[in-house]
Amino acid sequence: MITLLSDFGSASPYPAEMKLALAALTDAVLLDITHDVPPHDVRTGAYLLRAAVLRAPAGTVHLAVVDPGVGTSRRPLILHSGGQYFVGPDNGLMLPAARRLGVIRAFVITDEALIRGVRSSTFHGRDLFAPAAAHLARGTPPATLGAPAPEIVDLDLEEGRRQGRTLLGTVVYVDPFGNVVTNVPAALLPPPGRAVEVRIGRRRLRGTVRSTYGEGARGALVVVPGSDASVEIALREGDAARRAGVRAGVAVRIREG
Amino acid sequence: MITLLSDFGSASPYPAEMKLALAALTDAVLLDITHDVPPHDVRTGAYLLRAAVLRAPAGTVHLAVVDPGVGTSRRPLILHSGGQYFVGPDNGLMLPAARRLGVIRAFVITDEALIRGVRSSTFHGRDLFAPAAAHLARGTPPATLGAPAPEIVDLDLEEGRRQGRTLLGTVVYVDPFGNVVTNVPAALLPPPGRAVEVRIGRRRLRGTVRSTYGEGARGALVVVPGSDASVEIALREGDAARRAGVRAGVAVRIREG
Amino acid sequence: MITLLSDFGSASPYPAEMKLALAALTDAVLLDITHDVPPHDVRTGAYLLRAAVLRAPAGTVHLAVVDPGVGTSRRPLILHSGGQYFVGPDNGLMLPAARRLGVIRAFVITDEALIRGVRSSTFHGRDLFAPAAAHLARGTPPATLGAPAPEIVDLDLEEGRRQGRTLLGTVVYVDPFGNVVTNVPAALLPPPGRAVEVRIGRRRLRGTVRSTYGEGARGALVVVPGSDASVEIALREGDAARRAGVRAGVAVRIREG
Repeated sequence: MITLLSDFGSASPYPAEMKLALAALTDAVLLDITHDVPPHDVRTGAYLLRAAVLRAPAGTVHLAVVDPGVGTSRRPLILHSGGQYFVGPDNGLMLPAARRLGVIRAFVITDEALIRGVRSSTFHGRDLFAPAAAHLARGTPPATLGAPAPEIVDLDLEEGRRQGRTLLGTVVYVDPFGNVVTNVPAALLPPPGRAVEVRIGRRRLRGTVRSTYGEGARGALVVVPGSDASVEIALREGDAARRAGVRAGVAVRIREG
Repeated sequence: MITLLSDFGSASPYPAEMKLALAALTDAVLLDITHDVPPHDVRTGAYLLRAAVLRAPAGTVHLAVVDPGVGTSRRPLILHSGGQYFVGPDNGLMLPAARRLGVIRAFVITDEALIRGVRSSTFHGRDLFAPAAAHLARGTPPATLGAPAPEIVDLDLEEGRRQGRTLLGTVVYVDPFGNVVTNVPAALLPPPGRAVEVRIGRRRLRGTVRSTYGEGARGALVVVPGSDASVEIALREGDAARRAGVRAGVAVRIREG
Repeated sequence: MITLLSDFGSASPYPAEMKLALAALTDAVLLDITHDVPPHDVRTGAYLLRAAVLRAPAGTVHLAVVDPGVGTSRRPLILHSGGQYFVGPDNGLMLPAARRLGVIRAFVITDEALIRGVRSSTFHGRDLFAPAAAHLARGTPPATLGAPAPEIVDLDLEEGRRQGRTLLGTVVYVDPFGNVVTNVPAALLPPPGRAVEVRIGRRRLRGTVRSTYGEGARGALVVVPGSDASVEIALREGDAARRAGVRAGVAVRIREG
């Protein structure tokens, strides 16, 4: 199986061009994570890729392209971790996902035939990363396609923490429902029913810890353990992100009482 | 074959997480109906699911998740109708589609292993419904996964009707072209060429019955038999819904003359 | 393999209805190019289809439906070119793609069984083009499904040209990054590093020829050889189309100096 993640937009022809490049070399099953990562937003791409990998079967190849530096000196990378492979640019995009799976081995793509096949300086997703992913899916070992990369660009989505009665963290993602996903581990949450004060950026809101979105009154602010085991802030059948004026990167504080 | 319908948004990682949960248990072909149902809009989800099922082959499993009550006491359901299966929440979402296929047998999911596998209170699409759908696709009978459900939540998309020379109905869907899909059966339409007065909400518009969108002058209002055998109101190469300020749920009257 | 391109919108049920119609007749792999062509925009559809076909394997069938004239006298067409097939309306949509692959043989669909199977006057994508595409994918020769069409509707995406030190062309596509894709062949570009004046519509901007987007200062205007071998105008990590107020069809002039 090969998964695909990019910021190309599902209205563009670019995801299909990558898939045709893959299909020319492999009949692996293709599974889109999403192609609607906000343009050039490597951190959101990294979050979305990390959210998906835990359930991917061994041998899966993740083709991940959020690549504002395409065609410049940024290096083309293969990561190997927990039996899965990642192919994409050396800008941190793939690192949080690979880290979640265990110890990482990193390779810079150096294969002559692959490099020679690059027809454009603006679309390595199609011309370099897709063929490399297809070769991995066919069983070619990464060491055949590249050279070990002792250092790669770091990107850490970090983890929120508890300080006294306050949880401190950051917004890592706003989902299409307007649910605000933070980097605070859900295990740090007070038990369901507790009242909390939530500060997101400059906004201060009253809410309640719940075990799921649909509990409490309609329109009430709830703080719940999300599906990725991190704390989420939501409005029952409403858009919490719009209410609080939130986007990824903003600081979050959740205080009991 | 397993189809997927949700309000998760194609920009989110949630559809891919469901697909990876499916792929871990079955190699059935996966086919997206859409993941862009408006958030929490069970009625629109029900309409879209019903539109798709007539052409699905026997044995198809429809995994349908528009689920504002996820994690609350709303029950997880399997419906079996006309040789096809539906898996999702007990909120009416799947009922119009299942009804279109014939007599319905309903089951509440009670399988111990499935229930124990639920890791989150906020994402039953991935943790409960997807595994149940995968088991059905592999041939497990629904009675093995659940107990008969004598009563389930009802949702009726109803059907418009004729009263004298007037057709009375409701908008059930506005498609991406701005075509206004009603619940009035197309068989009730006057013959092509007839002039009609269309009232949608408070707007009153003059139009003509046509057999397809592209007939008549550019920008003219046409009333046509739609592809789901119900009456549609459209503008030739224009956006009828925007012109009339329409959304789903609004009343429609179409009168000859 | 069957590819699909339409203006139906990925939020609508129509792409899935086409796929179910295909799946009833063939188990060919289905690959979406996009379903988010702007409504009724045949030229943009033609550009997107043409961008994808070069990498499609021999025998691929392209099901392409941007069809404002559905159900009128416009003819249903099959094109055969370079070992690939195209199925869709006779409005020029498929012609630039087919032309790119070589000599074109054109057929009007006349097969009795196919025509009789058309259940709606508003959705030939599902009721006529999809079954025809499925038959082609199964190896039925186009001459069995239709009659030779000596004349078909023309649509030419043209090609920009050099006039002295100025490149003259048109915007053919604005991609989701805001990159402005022109019809000027990339081979006509001055070498990287050259300063250029770019006129798009009434706007006049200073830029530099580069070999890829990520070169030069952030926010700088760059003129690069795009992935489809035509000239693109971009902002480094910005939205060039918004800055210049551009849409498809607008004239472009690029002058050295």
